[in-house]
Amino acid sequence: MILKATGAPFEEELIEVEATEGRQFSPQAKRAFITKLGEVSPNARLPVLWHNDLLVWDTASIAEYLNELYPEANLWPSDPVSRAIARSVTAEMHSCFLALRRECRMDIFLRTNFELQDEKSHNDVRRMVRLYSSLRKRFKDRGAFLLGPWSIADAFVLPEATRLRSYGISLREHGDEDGIAQAYSDTLLATPHYLEWEGLSAPVA
Amino acid sequence: MILKATGAPFEEELIEVEATEGRQFSPQAKRAFITKLGEVSPNARLPVLWHNDLLVWDTASIAEYLNELYPEANLWPSDPVSRAIARSVTAEMHSCFLALRRECRMDIFLRTNFELQDEKSHNDVRRMVRLYSSLRKRFKDRGAFLLGPWSIADAFVLPEATRLRSYGISLREHGDEDGIAQAYSDTLLATPHYLEWEGLSAPVA
Repeated sequence: MILKATGAPFEEELIEVEATEGRQFSPQAKRAFITKLGEVSPNARLPVLWHNDLLVWDTASIAEYLNELYPEANLWPSDPVSRAIARSVTAEMHSCFLALRRECRMDIFLRTNFELQDEKSHNDVRRMVRLYSSLRKRFKDRGAFLLGPWSIADAFVLPEATRLRSYGISLREHGDEDGIAQAYSDTLLATPHYLEWEGLSAPVA
Repeated sequence: MILKATGAPFEEELIEVEATEGRQFSPQAKRAFITKLGEVSPNARLPVLWHNDLLVWDTASIAEYLNELYPEANLWPSDPVSRAIARSVTAEMHSCFLALRRECRMDIFLRTNFELQDEKSHNDVRRMVRLYSSLRKRFKDRGAFLLGPWSIADAFVLPEATRLRSYGISLREHGDEDGIAQAYSDTLLATPHYLEWEGLSAPVA
């Protein structure tokens, strides 16, 4: 999403995983995937970015690298205060919300109504609502995204928006009475860049 | 550590936690601490940085903010390739090694010999060894830190160096046959800035 926002040409290597019916993965498919990860990534996590001879790993680092390469893409907000907030959001999305992530593995095509079991997961969702809602109120005059114009922060919120949708988690029941956080999540899930990526990731029939 | 490296004046607010003998925390002390966290930090995590009216939260974001404010402090390596690597390391330290962190809660004054139970924790330590060792070999001619001169990446490795020391985890048994990763960890734990901070954090007798 961030790379697309730069407008730079790039090649994407998707790693296919063979799934059984019901989109489960066999132990063999899991092992093959883990082996492949170890081959392409120094810490067996994705994504990584190759630029000439340089391997950049971890989304947060890739984002900063692209920002340095393409300053004209305005991947971060242009004023220092908004930029600091955007980076704080990005860092929080990058390293927190672990209870929710544990309970609800990311699966963008899943649609279910799941009851969160862990009170910490509820707290994670409440925190997301407070975060999105307070920033949208503050920056609403500048645009439809978290800090107004689209920024890296939105790219880091996006996976969480898919997660909440997949598991049918209601933001309203977690403090979003005025629907501001939900409207923002919906905006993220409707951007052309996201929809294009979602299409590319669809299971092969 | 990063703020000290800028040379900028700052005030530090330490949050005291009352411990029982044996450095355990009572339920009351824990509750008081959590309440205090909620008051000072938007996501109940530390540290946060106040600069005039701006609250910056999360270490990774604070680091980038300080880098913007104090470019002359060279908090990141000056060449783009080393900088991208430093940011990748920082992002990985920031969000990974969760199994090890779960088993070994950070406690800089603890000294014990702990046997890691979770194979994932062993993998975390092996990954640290590979990471430190490969970068130290590559950048050894530029200085004693991970990418030669001290950078934000070193500040993000430091907590892990204290953790491994606290629990008596041998790097050698995790692939550090030549002792390069251990020597680097020792270097981190011997910097004047760290020793000064350690002194400030000591339990009050």
